[in-house]
Amino acid sequence: MTEVLSKTVKMNAENEIARITNEDWKNQAHLQNRIVQPLLTDLYEITMAYAYWKSGKTKDFAIFDLFFRQNPFQGEFTIFAGLEECLKFLQNFHYSDSDIKYLKQTLPSSIEAEFFVFLRQLTVKDVTIYAIQEGSVVFPRVPLMRVEGPLIIVQLLETTLLTLVNYASLMATNAARYRMAAGDNVRLLEFGLRRAQGPDGGLSASKYSYVGGFDGTSNVLAGKMYNIPVNGTHAHAYITSFNDFNELQTKVLIDRNTGQERDLLVLALEWRSKLATIMGSMASEASDGELAALISFAIAFPDGFMALVDTYDVKRSGMLNFCAVALSLNDLGYRAVGIRIDSGDLAYLSRKARETFNNIARTYSIPWFEQLTIVASNDINEETILSLNEQNHKIDCFGIGTHLVTCQRQPALGCVYKLVEINGLPRIKLSQDVGKMTMPGRKGHALIDIMMRSVEPAPEVGEKVLCRHPFQESKRTYVIPTKVEPLYKIYWKDGKVCGPLPSLEEIRDRVRNSLNTLRQDHKRNLNPTPFKVSVSADLYSFIHDLWLQNAPIGELS
Amino acid sequence: MTEVLSKTVKMNAENEIARITNEDWKNQAHLQNRIVQPLLTDLYEITMAYAYWKSGKTKDFAIFDLFFRQNPFQGEFTIFAGLEECLKFLQNFHYSDSDIKYLKQTLPSSIEAEFFVFLRQLTVKDVTIYAIQEGSVVFPRVPLMRVEGPLIIVQLLETTLLTLVNYASLMATNAARYRMAAGDNVRLLEFGLRRAQGPDGGLSASKYSYVGGFDGTSNVLAGKMYNIPVNGTHAHAYITSFNDFNELQTKVLIDRNTGQERDLLVLALEWRSKLATIMGSMASEASDGELAALISFAIAFPDGFMALVDTYDVKRSGMLNFCAVALSLNDLGYRAVGIRIDSGDLAYLSRKARETFNNIARTYSIPWFEQLTIVASNDINEETILSLNEQNHKIDCFGIGTHLVTCQRQPALGCVYKLVEINGLPRIKLSQDVGKMTMPGRKGHALIDIMMRSVEPAPEVGEKVLCRHPFQESKRTYVIPTKVEPLYKIYWKDGKVCGPLPSLEEIRDRVRNSLNTLRQDHKRNLNPTPFKVSVSADLYSFIHDLWLQNAPIGELS
Repeated sequence: MTEVLSKTVKMNAENEIARITNEDWKNQAHLQNRIVQPLLTDLYEITMAYAYWKSGKTKDFAIFDLFFRQNPFQGEFTIFAGLEECLKFLQNFHYSDSDIKYLKQTLPSSIEAEFFVFLRQLTVKDVTIYAIQEGSVVFPRVPLMRVEGPLIIVQLLETTLLTLVNYASLMATNAARYRMAAGDNVRLLEFGLRRAQGPDGGLSASKYSYVGGFDGTSNVLAGKMYNIPVNGTHAHAYITSFNDFNELQTKVLIDRNTGQERDLLVLALEWRSKLATIMGSMASEASDGELAALISFAIAFPDGFMALVDTYDVKRSGMLNFCAVALSLNDLGYRAVGIRIDSGDLAYLSRKARETFNNIARTYSIPWFEQLTIVASNDINEETILSLNEQNHKIDCFGIGTHLVTCQRQPALGCVYKLVEINGLPRIKLSQDVGKMTMPGRKGHALIDIMMRSVEPAPEVGEKVLCRHPFQESKRTYVIPTKVEPLYKIYWKDGKVCGPLPSLEEIRDRVRNSLNTLRQDHKRNLNPTPFKVSVSADLYSFIHDLWLQNAPIGELS
Repeated sequence: MTEVLSKTVKMNAENEIARITNEDWKNQAHLQNRIVQPLLTDLYEITMAYAYWKSGKTKDFAIFDLFFRQNPFQGEFTIFAGLEECLKFLQNFHYSDSDIKYLKQTLPSSIEAEFFVFLRQLTVKDVTIYAIQEGSVVFPRVPLMRVEGPLIIVQLLETTLLTLVNYASLMATNAARYRMAAGDNVRLLEFGLRRAQGPDGGLSASKYSYVGGFDGTSNVLAGKMYNIPVNGTHAHAYITSFNDFNELQTKVLIDRNTGQERDLLVLALEWRSKLATIMGSMASEASDGELAALISFAIAFPDGFMALVDTYDVKRSGMLNFCAVALSLNDLGYRAVGIRIDSGDLAYLSRKARETFNNIARTYSIPWFEQLTIVASNDINEETILSLNEQNHKIDCFGIGTHLVTCQRQPALGCVYKLVEINGLPRIKLSQDVGKMTMPGRKGHALIDIMMRSVEPAPEVGEKVLCRHPFQESKRTYVIPTKVEPLYKIYWKDGKVCGPLPSLEEIRDRVRNSLNTLRQDHKRNLNPTPFKVSVSADLYSFIHDLWLQNAPIGELS
């Protein structure tokens, strides 16, 4: 544990990076999903608000910590995401007349009318939010956000904040794990919209998979809303919609070298005959419908020719037809982009495809043919990628859908929002299960690996600090920090977002940089080493005294 | 297999049920999520549209089937849901100027300007949609929707339709499974918003868990948007926000019998002392903060007093404090509602709580105390409910979150959208994997269990029909139907929704009725019997001839 404090989290200096202005960001907010509003919450937040109000607790001052207890995906790290959406939610927070009308008819008729006036006028100007920077690597029990303010109001924020952080962080973490599995030299595209959990589930998936390290998405609306690169070519339906060459209403393409129109079908058929010999297959076995479809697609996108090759048979039809069209395009001065394989043994087929491309590159002296892109996209998950790596695949790009967006291996991150202090008094929820205990009190100088009380001075570089396990008395160690950084910044105060927020690109960079600073054994897929989050001696005593005070005295069990 | 055709799906006659008018429905649509729009799609739909357009395929007429290949959750049935949202999507379908602007800057610059004019003017008036009724029980390979129309347009609808049907059907199916596990006498509430996949994931979860048989949700916005009952009381934070009795600014409640104000704290403390003896615990062990919280909540909701009892210790603190307050309320003429347990051994704690309630009911002659509601809500899934059933739990109501809304056991239903016919010619995508083959051609008279060609006459009652397994030649049987019902209705034609649509309540009724007609062995949790979907002799020959025509001739493998 001695080196844990030497770990630093790189922070982008504000002057190094272009930021979008607050004004742009507000305009973007209008495009956003309108459903993130105060009623997007559990009813009990509102019944509690009434009971607090009725008990005269309108002036009570509370602090809630938002944190999770376990890293997802049997891993040992998590990416924090969703902060910007939380701030947008606060920025628009108010109960409309229509909300109040609905609540009046929904809550018991005994509720005093004055409470609805109170709700209608309620604002979040007295709320303060401290948070870790979006895109940071975070660990269990370390608060991601600390929400301070009038008890009633901060309680009312609970469900929506959890909704916004839970899935965003889970998705970003999942995407980051796929990125680590695939390595830096492979492109990763998110293709999950059709399998996402609701339309907005799809948008959030696109956004946070980009944050986690994906290169783009197939989701056009996500591209438009978040300025994420979008990708896509065609589906099997495109191929099967062509029966034969007669359906090709246009067969000609301009030869870039001569400016003359050339018949792409004639060229492609010539190439198909030649190639069949080299590739050890028969031109007659390849599908003519498929060739017609590829020719029409090449005419539509002569500079972006990427073809699905597994509609009929990758080796006997798809590859032959693709190469025939790609070589015809080459004759006319265009470069094809590559192929997509959506079924079968992806390792084997990608190796075979690469061999074929290399063969053709040598045979016809077309060096760029070796660089043709091979995209794979059938039901891929983290384990598939690791297994394909072992099989020495030749894939340049994965298109990943279902398992990425639904986070199949663990479809929810269990973020919670716990009251830790009220009117200056630390609060605690005891539980039979020690893992579910909360860490009471305001944790001021939380570092990525040591949580201290807010009243404690921050540790100093070069001076040793006692770091304790939060629960096990015997586990403790001295650490001499080489760098100390407070992790929390104020993001919301006096009814306003504090300072400019980072762009999606900057958050994405932070994810990459944060992960780079994390030791490899914490990141590996199989049995990763837990990252130790410790508490200071002072916080340890404070927590344990409070637990003892609150725990009922029972039998030893 | 002989009785399969005697199964009938009850359909509500239009005159039997109240329906919302088209006008109401349109107004509701405005409240809906604005993100369901044509750009909520995969980019390849649009690149394909261009390639089709460029190839002159603007007049091609295509038929796509939307179906799934496997029932979710290792079960043998699925509930079809999401149809209404698909129709709303069609109703609002058009590319805005802003969409066109975005597409122009996103697609390759080589795309002809005229294509964008085509897109801008594109409508769905020539599209026809046939579908099974929303809320019906459905099975693999039977098309849920058949989408007919101009190739380019029906292709452009693919991703959005899949997005809208996939999660809705998965959620409704999951909820129906929970309902079957819990039985009809237990209330089921959806509590999953905070763990849902994005804000709209939460709304869809609330809506479709209600459709699948849940009684309500905690999600207030879902209540407002869909008119679903909402429920909720308080969280642990409410309990821990009270330290002691001094914080009770109001302690009095009007006695309903006398109209006089009474001090609820004094009453509750008296009751707590008395009860401690009966319940074999010590009043001094119970938390005063918890009692203060419960008193304040009872004062706020004297007719709706439902209390969380596990903040400190269910047996030694929570139950004692709850019963003390409930009996005090009883003294003043109010009836408490019940308790919620959110941790620990739910079977054991619920039995103990019921014993205590029964004891008190007898001791103080308060019969309704036996009927106090016990809500349980900690990480519950289908298996937990089945296990609790075996342990003879005494729970009246489950609050279910994470596992319900994320569909943890299988987080996606693999719906697909396949081209089955173009310009009158059946189309097929062959695959090495026979399970992934499509069933080509227009299937006209599809019943729940036999698919026929659209040109075939429907089977008649009392006349035998040959039902064949779609793939295995030797599996076939004669069936004499006792009732024959075509399953498809036209839902969209000439740019309009056809006829009034059922309300959410009616869809929910259909789920229950459909499931009631399904044999028990198809519905059981463990190793359910597959429901057989057959094809007619004519469709069998048609499919197999087409497969043979399209499959390349290779070695026997």
